[in-house]
Amino acid sequence: MEKLVDLQRNGLKMVEDSDKFRFGMDAVFLSGWAEVKKGERVLDMGTGTGILPLLLSAKTEAGQIVGIEVQQECAELAARNVTLNGLSDRITVVHGDLKDSVNLFGKASFDVVVSNPPYMTGGHGLINPQNAKAIARHEVLCTFADVAEQAAAVLKPGGRFYLVHRPFRLPEIITTLVKFGLEPKRLRMVHSYVDKEPNMMLLGCVKGGRPRIQVEKPLIVWEKPGKYTEEVINTYGF
Amino acid sequence: MEKLVDLQRNGLKMVEDSDKFRFGMDAVFLSGWAEVKKGERVLDMGTGTGILPLLLSAKTEAGQIVGIEVQQECAELAARNVTLNGLSDRITVVHGDLKDSVNLFGKASFDVVVSNPPYMTGGHGLINPQNAKAIARHEVLCTFADVAEQAAAVLKPGGRFYLVHRPFRLPEIITTLVKFGLEPKRLRMVHSYVDKEPNMMLLGCVKGGRPRIQVEKPLIVWEKPGKYTEEVINTYGF
Repeated sequence: MEKLVDLQRNGLKMVEDSDKFRFGMDAVFLSGWAEVKKGERVLDMGTGTGILPLLLSAKTEAGQIVGIEVQQECAELAARNVTLNGLSDRITVVHGDLKDSVNLFGKASFDVVVSNPPYMTGGHGLINPQNAKAIARHEVLCTFADVAEQAAAVLKPGGRFYLVHRPFRLPEIITTLVKFGLEPKRLRMVHSYVDKEPNMMLLGCVKGGRPRIQVEKPLIVWEKPGKYTEEVINTYGF
Repeated sequence: MEKLVDLQRNGLKMVEDSDKFRFGMDAVFLSGWAEVKKGERVLDMGTGTGILPLLLSAKTEAGQIVGIEVQQECAELAARNVTLNGLSDRITVVHGDLKDSVNLFGKASFDVVVSNPPYMTGGHGLINPQNAKAIARHEVLCTFADVAEQAAAVLKPGGRFYLVHRPFRLPEIITTLVKFGLEPKRLRMVHSYVDKEPNMMLLGCVKGGRPRIQVEKPLIVWEKPGKYTEEVINTYGF
């Protein structure tokens, strides 16, 4: 069922479909953590209902932001959300497979790529791998290597790739990024509570960057049940 | 100048040379974090004055523990520390280059390898690269790839490699470990304070392990200046 959600940022609103497509805190954190400078061209690989382009348009001075989404119904919802917010001049939604990014947009065509890709490997054991949620969460239609390869190809030299993923895949994510020339330069672990293991990680890479990473202080989400930490409220806009 | 230090664990004591060789909290944390089961054979690559073998003998039920150290003066101090503590039946110190580990000890000869290797790349800009401290801290005599290659070679299949290193080298450390078949399975970041970036990382690998890492909750060292956190006191024995 469709629902109109207030993004609590610049009056932004978006339509979600609670049965199929809902954005998570992942997108909110990534949009608050990624560095996008004035006028930079941004690509969001696997944009879903367009949450990252919408939030980046509000939180940064990005120029053109393009979101690519393989699921038609989802891409249509993203396009409606862009119109709904009067952002058609800054955000473009493309219905297509992110594996075709370099063919669609050309080499070295973006300053920044962002992605909140499927976290789970494979689609083994899924009851319906064509299910919209399954495609968003599991690597049914693309692997992380596909994402990294395309991100590297469409980025300009020195361009940045910001992504959110799960810590349990850290070694594989890092070796894959390095393989495609995307050097990890910033890492921030996100913890529900200060005494809990991280359940999310934010990773920033530079195409052709020199090896040296800044591991940042932990991002703690909750001070106590029902109360966000000050940093989450102030920086990430909850 | 030599000094006798109380390790505050099982009555252990050790001789240090404050001008040349001093152990740090790194070794204390690593020895409290590494998992060594009853009777397992352990190799410490770059043992310094023998702090890791001494602490592991007290904190675990390890069988034979071998420490290899390239600096003669340092290896002699380590051997004296073993004798001083009456541990000659469990700990052996070998004066040799860790790059010769597989030649000295043979393939698949250890259940566990531990290491607190030099953290800094190269010896560029060092006033005296033959200086004892420089050799312990900078990759003058060995690179991290040397350490990983030898660790992989002397470990049995399924054997574990525990190391402490600096977070700023995380991507390089992980890609190197994976290259040599040492799959990172546990990672713990060590922070001086809860709101500071990590300045140390503990990493546990399994030879031939399947990719999936457990990133653990942060280890916070200080509750406030001069007061360790409870976990550091209880678990790590400060």
